[in-house]
Amino acid sequence: MKNTSFQVKGFLAATAKAQIKKGADREDLGLLVSRTPAAVAGVFTQNRVKAASILVNQERIISGQGRAILVNSGNANACTGEQGLKDTRFLTRRISDSLDLPENQVFMASTGVIGQPLPIKRMARALPFLVQGLNEKNLPAVAQAIMTTDTFPKIESREVPLEKTRCRLVGIAKGAGMIQPHLATMLGFVLTDAAVAPTLLNELLRESADQSFNSITVDGDTSTNDLLLIMANGLAGNPKLEDRKSAGAKAFKKALDHLLLDLARMIVRDGEGATKEVKLLIKGARTVEEARTMGFTVANSPLVKTALFGEDANWGRILAALGRSGVSFDPAQVDLFFGSVPLVKRGLGLGPEQEIPASRVLKKKAFTITVDLHQGRAKAAVYTCDLSLDYVRINADYRT
Amino acid sequence: MKNTSFQVKGFLAATAKAQIKKGADREDLGLLVSRTPAAVAGVFTQNRVKAASILVNQERIISGQGRAILVNSGNANACTGEQGLKDTRFLTRRISDSLDLPENQVFMASTGVIGQPLPIKRMARALPFLVQGLNEKNLPAVAQAIMTTDTFPKIESREVPLEKTRCRLVGIAKGAGMIQPHLATMLGFVLTDAAVAPTLLNELLRESADQSFNSITVDGDTSTNDLLLIMANGLAGNPKLEDRKSAGAKAFKKALDHLLLDLARMIVRDGEGATKEVKLLIKGARTVEEARTMGFTVANSPLVKTALFGEDANWGRILAALGRSGVSFDPAQVDLFFGSVPLVKRGLGLGPEQEIPASRVLKKKAFTITVDLHQGRAKAAVYTCDLSLDYVRINADYRT
Repeated sequence: MKNTSFQVKGFLAATAKAQIKKGADREDLGLLVSRTPAAVAGVFTQNRVKAASILVNQERIISGQGRAILVNSGNANACTGEQGLKDTRFLTRRISDSLDLPENQVFMASTGVIGQPLPIKRMARALPFLVQGLNEKNLPAVAQAIMTTDTFPKIESREVPLEKTRCRLVGIAKGAGMIQPHLATMLGFVLTDAAVAPTLLNELLRESADQSFNSITVDGDTSTNDLLLIMANGLAGNPKLEDRKSAGAKAFKKALDHLLLDLARMIVRDGEGATKEVKLLIKGARTVEEARTMGFTVANSPLVKTALFGEDANWGRILAALGRSGVSFDPAQVDLFFGSVPLVKRGLGLGPEQEIPASRVLKKKAFTITVDLHQGRAKAAVYTCDLSLDYVRINADYRT
Repeated sequence: MKNTSFQVKGFLAATAKAQIKKGADREDLGLLVSRTPAAVAGVFTQNRVKAASILVNQERIISGQGRAILVNSGNANACTGEQGLKDTRFLTRRISDSLDLPENQVFMASTGVIGQPLPIKRMARALPFLVQGLNEKNLPAVAQAIMTTDTFPKIESREVPLEKTRCRLVGIAKGAGMIQPHLATMLGFVLTDAAVAPTLLNELLRESADQSFNSITVDGDTSTNDLLLIMANGLAGNPKLEDRKSAGAKAFKKALDHLLLDLARMIVRDGEGATKEVKLLIKGARTVEEARTMGFTVANSPLVKTALFGEDANWGRILAALGRSGVSFDPAQVDLFFGSVPLVKRGLGLGPEQEIPASRVLKKKAFTITVDLHQGRAKAAVYTCDLSLDYVRINADYRT
């Protein structure tokens, strides 16, 4: 990883060891700070059971202004009641005091075990080291510190020309998997030096997240802690983006789309036990919403996912999953392809001779399955991975 | 199995070998026949992709009259278009000709591979043997013939006193699993000598199925071929049951409830790779529908199911699944028990010391997890099994 490409003007980062899991000897705390006031926007878990950090962030994000994000692995601080909220407020106040920032501009993200209180003393003791360590070069270290069973750190950058300046975006994410996998949590952070009005930033983040973080699934489970935050400090010096229809906003959105989709696909590729990265493209739907619903039903079907793991061109399971998705369609109109190999034409299987070229597609690390419903013009892509023996091992055997 | 307890007055059964899977040397065809006209009712898959047999049955069931059910394993006859419908009509016409029955009173059920035409010649050749073999003692043989990766045949009986007579119900089912598991299909057949008006039979079957066959899940996938049929020939001689509120209808319903729940639980216990049978009881909900939705979300969560396999008292995953079920509730009111061991009280974990007694519950073959939402008085039970390494092996490796 070339550190230089993962810097953004005016953003500092640091990591520290807080032994959040007792006895653990690893960086488990991270801090992201903007030197100057930044616009902030966020997308948070839709789960009704929300971690303390999510609840606090939801209060604070309303202002549209942010300066810092504190992140920890090893403990989700979820189902921890009033104490959990107090702990989150205490830690973020410490950061705001040390850095002289408004308290409500410090955000927090947590991932790890549910239902246990944060080891607040050990964490507080580590905070001064974290603040001292702040540095422009440490973004990749944060990507590393939030890893759990992730097998590689997830960090990406993009540049986008805006009028006479070039602005940068750096994104960091962690995916589905923990050393002690009580829950798979998805965290994403984007830092950019572009100047973007908070309301536009919020709008763009939501749209972009729908096509990326909200279009992936490893196992259909939604964490209590999922979160995606963006901070834009404007130090690139571009004229502030405010109009959704301006060329600048479109260019910025395109870069954001690519960045988030890259990160989201990294999460899928690194899903617990995953051996395949599969794009499910549902075409010819009546609405995007229907296409998404069908894509997610297929992507979360254990029978489809185990067939992908077994490299079995089992299109019957895909048709059956489409059929139980709740969306009405005519099964006799469906075409289905593995890569470019047609397997079903107008609802009928094309016979066993198609299975040999199809199984060649299935042996690849990444491929696309296309379903054409011939019901309309809408489409949606959902990204997923297979369900392997290792997924079960990782999630069943964590105590051993 | 005592054959005598699996007979019902006036019902005959037979099995035959048709080599539906080429070269297979097993009974793969079954036939159930009532000597006299019988009332019939059915519940069919909600999947929009429906097998040919389902489509034909749905036309024929409208009359409320039935005489025979032909059932095959080894081929689902789904996604086979017009040819599939023709094949189903051809085979059932052969049965109606041989036995001199009205054609539209012969039903058919299929389970097996999707997307391949039925081997209609081999099947037609076996039909005369099937008809010749009809016999009152052969119901258990049919339970055997429809088995696939089922590890035990599923047959149960009940008696119910109706006025001066005793009537009998015998139920047969197959569960989730096939030797070539392209799809898990659930089939159920109930034969009774009670006299029941067709409309009442239909009403009772639907209600009873909701509490049994419609309250279980192995992996959340709904087959294109799922079906539950009941035939009531009235030979017990009871005054015909017509009024839902009569004592007789209530007694019959109770026996039907128990019979179907027994069969449904056998299917769960014998789910592909299952090592645990788990009853999820959601109490204190506002409506039964909400309780069911939450129960199914928990029951189908891969993270919950793998934790059950790992015998891990991981209540955080259950709370997270409840939270993403789409039902609104107050997480701070939730109580949760494994067996009788409380793990969560008003949304807060009761600490690690509860995990030892809880893990004793988890080591059992069958147990109940109770969630009390404290939001209302409705409740629902959902029955499921765990997600084991063998589930993945069975569904990924069928070609090897």
